[in-house]
Amino acid sequence: MTSYSSYPRFFVSVDCVVFGFEDNKLKVLIHKRPYDPGKGELSLIGGFVEKNENLETAALRILTDFTGLDDVHLSQIAAFGEVERDPGERVISIVYSVLLDLSRFNENIATEHNAEWVDIDQLPKLCFDHNMMVDKARLMLGEAIKNSPVAGHLLPSHFTISTLQTLYEAILGQEIDKRNFRRSLSDKPYIHATDLIDHKSSRRGALLYKFDL
Amino acid sequence: MTSYSSYPRFFVSVDCVVFGFEDNKLKVLIHKRPYDPGKGELSLIGGFVEKNENLETAALRILTDFTGLDDVHLSQIAAFGEVERDPGERVISIVYSVLLDLSRFNENIATEHNAEWVDIDQLPKLCFDHNMMVDKARLMLGEAIKNSPVAGHLLPSHFTISTLQTLYEAILGQEIDKRNFRRSLSDKPYIHATDLIDHKSSRRGALLYKFDL
Repeated sequence: MTSYSSYPRFFVSVDCVVFGFEDNKLKVLIHKRPYDPGKGELSLIGGFVEKNENLETAALRILTDFTGLDDVHLSQIAAFGEVERDPGERVISIVYSVLLDLSRFNENIATEHNAEWVDIDQLPKLCFDHNMMVDKARLMLGEAIKNSPVAGHLLPSHFTISTLQTLYEAILGQEIDKRNFRRSLSDKPYIHATDLIDHKSSRRGALLYKFDL
Repeated sequence: MTSYSSYPRFFVSVDCVVFGFEDNKLKVLIHKRPYDPGKGELSLIGGFVEKNENLETAALRILTDFTGLDDVHLSQIAAFGEVERDPGERVISIVYSVLLDLSRFNENIATEHNAEWVDIDQLPKLCFDHNMMVDKARLMLGEAIKNSPVAGHLLPSHFTISTLQTLYEAILGQEIDKRNFRRSLSDKPYIHATDLIDHKSSRRGALLYKFDL
């Protein structure tokens, strides 16, 4: 027995800001909310936490349902708990950022759930406070890529510097000077040149790099 | 009516990692837990979220109770929600980092609640996962001070560069080269020299600086 019983209890959900990178765009996975309130509105991927389930386990369960992937990169962004955030009932939502390599994504699973990838810079109005969740997750991703190899989860194992720069620009929402970008890589011990050359991107070929993840 | 009713509900608490800076040490406010489970164990400052209360409002209410201050700097760190984290019942805790200027702190209020300030490097075993909360809050503070004026909330409005360096060292848990530290300040547009001289710290006097907070 505890002395907790006089305190209120709350529904707790998990919402996932699932990021992918494709066609030089940072994309977010959204779908049509399948139940009320807000049925049919556009929404992040989410669901309720179950009784004997850790928060991260819940996020991973929901994510695997939608993507078929279970080895994605997951990190907690924040708890969103404003009293009126959900017009149905009070729900406190724990938001996760998910980074995955879109070339590994099973498109069929998204279609099955009415889910689709949308360019983050063209994001429509989402239900509740989901747009704020995306903004916060993007900001935190922008901070994280400055001194960690985390952006590598959005890419295939090998990539050109030019692809990496495009990804950084898409995350930060601004252009980066090419020379400064190349120079800044020398401070990042977790990025390595490999012996491999990519011949798809240019006739001369471009050296392929990889992250130590 | 919503379709939520079949989902479980959880107790939600707020725990505050309250930081202060005194005698060249980074300190954390702890107290003896007043109820079971874990009655008498050392604990962060915390409490349950109420029915119509935003998470941050709850954190501020609990903090004002303990410190008498209501204009402190508050930022959310993370949700801690492991199933077994509280031996009483499942409680999901939202952790806040609180920065305050210890010279403004009302010591009487701490005493009334059996609260005390402990050097973070001498922190005893706290109840549940509270030591992990402190570690996480310290890490995030260490990141935040690199490119924001947030450390200013731990200091009086005017301070010497030597005091600021000591604070940064206490947060990061490592010594910083004095010349590098002074040089790094020129990249921080939110730190300004003032016209004032501090004569307490040395006979020659030291120029006082301030943050744009």
